[in-house]
Amino acid sequence: MNHECSFLTDLGLRDDQVSFERASRDQHATDWATERISDGVSPDAVVWPESTDDVSRILAAATDHGVPVTPYAAGTGLEGHAVPVEGGISMNLTRMDAVLEYRPADFQIDVQAGVLGAAVDEHVGRDGLFFPPLPSSGEISTVGGMIATDASGMQTVKYGEVADWVLGLEAVLADGTVIRTGSRATKTSSGYNLTDLLVGSEGTLAVVTEATLELAGRPEQVRGGRAIFDSISDATEAIADAIGAGVDVAKIELLCDLSARMSNTYLETDLPDAPMVFLEFHANHGIDEEIALCEALFESHGVRAFEIGADRAAMDDLWTVRKELAYAILTYEEALEPVHHGDVTVPISAYPEIVGFAKALAAEFDVYVPCYGHAGDGNLHYTVLVDHDDPAALERAENIYDRVVRRAIDLGGTATGEHGIGEGKRRYMVPEHGAGAVGAMAAIKRALDPTGTLNPGKVLPDDG
Amino acid sequence: MNHECSFLTDLGLRDDQVSFERASRDQHATDWATERISDGVSPDAVVWPESTDDVSRILAAATDHGVPVTPYAAGTGLEGHAVPVEGGISMNLTRMDAVLEYRPADFQIDVQAGVLGAAVDEHVGRDGLFFPPLPSSGEISTVGGMIATDASGMQTVKYGEVADWVLGLEAVLADGTVIRTGSRATKTSSGYNLTDLLVGSEGTLAVVTEATLELAGRPEQVRGGRAIFDSISDATEAIADAIGAGVDVAKIELLCDLSARMSNTYLETDLPDAPMVFLEFHANHGIDEEIALCEALFESHGVRAFEIGADRAAMDDLWTVRKELAYAILTYEEALEPVHHGDVTVPISAYPEIVGFAKALAAEFDVYVPCYGHAGDGNLHYTVLVDHDDPAALERAENIYDRVVRRAIDLGGTATGEHGIGEGKRRYMVPEHGAGAVGAMAAIKRALDPTGTLNPGKVLPDDG
Repeated sequence: MNHECSFLTDLGLRDDQVSFERASRDQHATDWATERISDGVSPDAVVWPESTDDVSRILAAATDHGVPVTPYAAGTGLEGHAVPVEGGISMNLTRMDAVLEYRPADFQIDVQAGVLGAAVDEHVGRDGLFFPPLPSSGEISTVGGMIATDASGMQTVKYGEVADWVLGLEAVLADGTVIRTGSRATKTSSGYNLTDLLVGSEGTLAVVTEATLELAGRPEQVRGGRAIFDSISDATEAIADAIGAGVDVAKIELLCDLSARMSNTYLETDLPDAPMVFLEFHANHGIDEEIALCEALFESHGVRAFEIGADRAAMDDLWTVRKELAYAILTYEEALEPVHHGDVTVPISAYPEIVGFAKALAAEFDVYVPCYGHAGDGNLHYTVLVDHDDPAALERAENIYDRVVRRAIDLGGTATGEHGIGEGKRRYMVPEHGAGAVGAMAAIKRALDPTGTLNPGKVLPDDG
Repeated sequence: MNHECSFLTDLGLRDDQVSFERASRDQHATDWATERISDGVSPDAVVWPESTDDVSRILAAATDHGVPVTPYAAGTGLEGHAVPVEGGISMNLTRMDAVLEYRPADFQIDVQAGVLGAAVDEHVGRDGLFFPPLPSSGEISTVGGMIATDASGMQTVKYGEVADWVLGLEAVLADGTVIRTGSRATKTSSGYNLTDLLVGSEGTLAVVTEATLELAGRPEQVRGGRAIFDSISDATEAIADAIGAGVDVAKIELLCDLSARMSNTYLETDLPDAPMVFLEFHANHGIDEEIALCEALFESHGVRAFEIGADRAAMDDLWTVRKELAYAILTYEEALEPVHHGDVTVPISAYPEIVGFAKALAAEFDVYVPCYGHAGDGNLHYTVLVDHDDPAALERAENIYDRVVRRAIDLGGTATGEHGIGEGKRRYMVPEHGAGAVGAMAAIKRALDPTGTLNPGKVLPDDG
């Protein structure tokens, strides 16, 4: 796995832009969830470009020398996207974190890829604007990383995913060619849509260096709270009904009763031991009517309590619970660790079925499978917890994880609603898309990156 | 330009699915606006596939025989998309017009590519649903054609363009491979976004055979009317201000005073001889507040009259005027015909500038240039009318048309907001996107259609 990378010192970069040190290389060897995927890999060198021109020179030279380049942003990915599985160069883009131009009258901002998502919101907040598809990790993850995975988050049910809010990109191809995609016009029918091709391509087709993002105006009315159900099937059927009826909700998050218990342990919260739905409504007019419509639909599914308050602090507490849930799950029992991070997404009418399926497997095999997620999108996050020192249990857990993904695909859904394929979900590419579509993706990969320089071993299966 | 197409009779198609007759070939030689672009071309054969399998067999055989295939739908394109400029086969997809599956609880419908846009609305209207991005031609144009150009329409300012409402596709590659793209899940981060790559690719990468469309719920409140201004700059500045303030408007269409006079002549309407803005508001709550906000902003730009009624019939009359405007322009003076159909789109803040630029050129050269369009998107339709028998005038008209496109690109906009590139706008691809991005598009074209079978001579410039 050793690649000779000394050419990096001949590219006119400063000393502090290149490192061959063990410590730097180790820092760029993992992401948030890759111990089980790519144990023991490490880049041969780390570079920190500070301009598009730096990116271009590094890529051109790497391609010339046959050295792979894996883009690295905040390292918060959950599928090994940023892990340099074939060694070579880890390209850390976090120094390219400038806001370039802000055009509030057009609801647009141009940023470099390394800017934090939360920094965008901070920059535009004074004008009452915000970047709606920010994921839960938005305070620590970069715009470039969000673009790489086509991330989404709690507000996607109302506002859409990252792809819906990217108007154009600057990106660098493997050979160093700098391209611009898209337009500042909010619609265009001019040429192939390279923007949406690059969004979600996980740094395998080009390195995104800049983005033109669209912004939205903050709603005048915001109210939120929670609904408590007697059973998870009541909760998921209520959600599917509300979405199917077109209720205008901005966040609608599921927490199963096990998730609630885990939160109580970790966060010392006092949640009821019951399935819950956390809700938030955004509107400029008529928010009470939307809340009433939602309540009526939830009542038809036997909701035990429907508590929508006007207290902003209490509402923020709920979202803290939701954001911290992943940590609560990881620490619930010391011996138990997750296999993967389930991220399946199905049509909303199939949401009760996929959640019920996951819970039935948990009961059948007597394992912890907390179920939560962006329910309004049909997005289920589920975590199979297991003692990794017990090979039989580990195999069972892998099997449960796998069966839920395959059921989601059978239901017309996707292996990943927002985390991306990375290294970990490549085995689901052909089951989900079919060999023909995966073959077309591979042809595009070869066309734009014929030497296979960019992020090898990701997205496409090995036989793609 | 003659291609031997007799192999079409060996593919198991019925006699009425293949024609080599002059009349059929001539019917497939033009679209709505190609006399000036591709005079005298004609396909060597016309085929009417009735299934995806038919499409696959025809494409595989055509690729084997080195014969080009140009998809043909309703023929309503304005840039020669469906014109077989290199002869070969015209593939008419209008017989593939079935609604395949309708899933109202998921706001989804699966249709074949040849179904008319209006037929989708008709099918789902009983449930209070509709397909929002339908273009003005929706009653006579097909879903496949709308997908080919990434069409949009009067409601795009509120609801988005066709690409925003396509969840997935079935398509056939040049070699006959049938692929499925996208997902029934409303969001996915799984693999490259082939759906949005194919939407807007004008049949040059694959032939789209089926689509999964998303639907929206009809708004409970609809009100509309018109605003009259003293000058076109007042009108366009009022529009830019209203959009920049986030007014929730569903249609916001500009008509210049010349357009109004043309309508009065052709439709015998009684419009004032003044620039106007036609408006429609959609909401479930608070429609009066949005109308009041719009009125206040328009008043700050000196609106002469702001007339929003509750009379549905009067409102429908306005939209008839708007839809018929293209015909009014064509018939205004017998000796005058348009050069091209301007479709530039700019960031909304630049809308006053691009409209003013077009009008200034019209005044400078003393020619008719009616300006209208989907103003809320920054989309300007302009038509330069000229006596085509006067070479000097024709050259002047071409120059005016061209300068407006180039100014739009300089303003960060696009040569085409919704009509597509076809044959007519290929010369603007490099000025708009740069050689790097066009090179990447050409690489994708070669990867998916290495023999150049599909719709040659479209989208990409010859040196691409």
